[in-house]
Amino acid sequence: AEDSHFPIQNLPYGVFSTKDNDTPRIGVAIGDQILCLSEIAHLFDGPNLIKCRHVFAELQKTLNSFMSLGIAAWREARAKLQSLLSSDNHLLRDNQELRKRAFTPQKEAVMHLPVTVGDYTDFYSSIHHATNVGTMFRGKDNALMPNWKHIPVGYHGRASSVVVSGTPIRRPCGQTKPENEPPVFGPCRLMDFELEMGFFVGSGNKLGDRVDVKNAQDHIFGMVLVNDWSARDIQKWEYVPLGPFLGKNFGTTISPWVVTMDALSSFIVENTKQDVQVLPYLKHDDNYNFDIKLSVSIQGEGMNEPAVVCNSNFKNMYWTMKQQLAHHTVNGCNSQTGDLYGSGTISGEDETSYGSMLELCWKGTKEVDLGNGNKRKFLKDGDNVVMSGYCQGSGFRVGFGTCEGKILPAAL
Amino acid sequence: AEDSHFPIQNLPYGVFSTKDNDTPRIGVAIGDQILCLSEIAHLFDGPNLIKCRHVFAELQKTLNSFMSLGIAAWREARAKLQSLLSSDNHLLRDNQELRKRAFTPQKEAVMHLPVTVGDYTDFYSSIHHATNVGTMFRGKDNALMPNWKHIPVGYHGRASSVVVSGTPIRRPCGQTKPENEPPVFGPCRLMDFELEMGFFVGSGNKLGDRVDVKNAQDHIFGMVLVNDWSARDIQKWEYVPLGPFLGKNFGTTISPWVVTMDALSSFIVENTKQDVQVLPYLKHDDNYNFDIKLSVSIQGEGMNEPAVVCNSNFKNMYWTMKQQLAHHTVNGCNSQTGDLYGSGTISGEDETSYGSMLELCWKGTKEVDLGNGNKRKFLKDGDNVVMSGYCQGSGFRVGFGTCEGKILPAAL
Repeated sequence: AEDSHFPIQNLPYGVFSTKDNDTPRIGVAIGDQILCLSEIAHLFDGPNLIKCRHVFAELQKTLNSFMSLGIAAWREARAKLQSLLSSDNHLLRDNQELRKRAFTPQKEAVMHLPVTVGDYTDFYSSIHHATNVGTMFRGKDNALMPNWKHIPVGYHGRASSVVVSGTPIRRPCGQTKPENEPPVFGPCRLMDFELEMGFFVGSGNKLGDRVDVKNAQDHIFGMVLVNDWSARDIQKWEYVPLGPFLGKNFGTTISPWVVTMDALSSFIVENTKQDVQVLPYLKHDDNYNFDIKLSVSIQGEGMNEPAVVCNSNFKNMYWTMKQQLAHHTVNGCNSQTGDLYGSGTISGEDETSYGSMLELCWKGTKEVDLGNGNKRKFLKDGDNVVMSGYCQGSGFRVGFGTCEGKILPAAL
Repeated sequence: AEDSHFPIQNLPYGVFSTKDNDTPRIGVAIGDQILCLSEIAHLFDGPNLIKCRHVFAELQKTLNSFMSLGIAAWREARAKLQSLLSSDNHLLRDNQELRKRAFTPQKEAVMHLPVTVGDYTDFYSSIHHATNVGTMFRGKDNALMPNWKHIPVGYHGRASSVVVSGTPIRRPCGQTKPENEPPVFGPCRLMDFELEMGFFVGSGNKLGDRVDVKNAQDHIFGMVLVNDWSARDIQKWEYVPLGPFLGKNFGTTISPWVVTMDALSSFIVENTKQDVQVLPYLKHDDNYNFDIKLSVSIQGEGMNEPAVVCNSNFKNMYWTMKQQLAHHTVNGCNSQTGDLYGSGTISGEDETSYGSMLELCWKGTKEVDLGNGNKRKFLKDGDNVVMSGYCQGSGFRVGFGTCEGKILPAAL
């Protein structure tokens, strides 16, 4: 189907289980099916994978072992999968028995966290988002901090609470500070999503070494959609001077399919023009920006369908992922297989492309219309937030599926 | 010996290897020896450990499996070890063959990172440190941020770069900002240590749940010394608005022996008086502050011995570890076996007890005397920084050994 997210041009990796077999195992999405790699591991006979077929074996519950093999193995696996799944290859096509074992309909599968996340870092790399937030809190003239165009600003997030799409998110409780009154404890009142994407490092760098910006792409395995849930009122009171903490670390949702950089390479577009000269360690000449259409919908309780609140695009990023990784490691910080690096909220230039309720309701000064009388400033209990993303090819899409999460009421 | 850090009252856990056997394995420090637990795993016959002896088996390369068993198992292991090592127990005493296999002199062992660190969080819980830093950067009247006495302020650190004592630390390169000039790239010029301690979570909490402050001690396995290396000039330019990042994540050193909370329980002292009423989720009546004497020495190249630059004490902490863990999880953030929680720099009230060069040289306004004409503001290449800590009992010490790291020159 032309609007399928998972044609043969995509072939993203995920981890799934079924009612019949609840052991999480590695699969590849193809159309509305999942191809189980443990069932076809014996077919990977190229020079990089022939001795490492165990990375697809049933005991592998995440992609980490495969990711750690490096870019030559990733490319070999992709080429083999495209060959096996092409209509003129008889190995899978004519083996009914194997086909039956190897394919599972996506609708019958439960998806799991695809990667054991090592460290999770979140950047702040959309200039429109940074400008919007800065304007709200410091005024238009001081919107961007002096460092923003010199360094891809980022911070360490919480890896333990990264969850897969579909995991409900409990509204956090915490400390907030009403103006001119002492702080109080209670459920977050300004619950928000942040539309982000993230990349996984496949092969890392040793402590004390650095990743050269010119080769940084060889370390990047693939990308997912990311919802960096945010409790704005908790964040506001806690974040000075050491940054976001409990306002963020109660949950971060990622989409279940990791789309490889090779699948995305046809959708590379020009890098955003950086109007301040960056230091040499951040300079690269090749384009490494991606045209990925993104949307966010909200379906509240009682709503018949989700209402789109945001249409954005990953190409709004000011800093490239190569620059982010080079910066992160320029001091010798080691990256490792499974590390997740978030983009920061991806907002576009106009109001319909803002990637958070904070921006869409402009700090609570206006309501966002969800249709049929449903309005929101921030998120309500029962709201299901659905992010989606895809690249549009000529007659096909390379998509990420969805990244969803429903807000459960706070537990006092 | 009276000044040994490792008498029978201590029995800290670590991971070691030897020239003859380079597989890292779990050991307990006793005097100047290490007792290898894989050699005596069969002797753990209590109700909690009899079915879980694998946690001490040779294939366990860290303490995580043991830690995950929970407090009843930790206590049972300690009681058994104290019994086995007491002079009237014949099991070890009279079995020359087993003794020979089970004991290794500490001086012949290589120590490894004792725990696979999940997430690493660093707090900011010494009021003297926070006041000193605040005074330097914002003046005496605005030294403490308005939130500081209401919440144990903290931030997420980098887990991948936590290393064991003895690992050299390369001076980081990075971006810094000279006044009135564009940012430049180069080696850190204001290299610093931070004297901290940290605790490891043994048994965590599920996402969406929280750790009750009243029971928080049951989740805490033990403590280590922590050197939170800091590049002050990098930190200064990058940290607004999202907090410390590359100024910190190039390395964090911990001591190799994890001292259990049971070993420390004899050294509990009164909690620091909190003169602002805290919210109920942070209140506990029991004392959970610890009298741990701490010191920092520096041995520069060409110096015959290390010079003490700081004498401090863990009891200077304003917030307790119970409060830190309760706060961290009050929003439903999940803690996991192996998570490391740093105290923040532990400075005392007077100048000789400041836990960082930033404070000792008061932002570069004075020199610290190391004797024989050696002076420092910040750290030089070749400096070996040695932290040490112990509790003084009546005729014995419960100690942490040392936490050391030598600065290597930057790699441009």
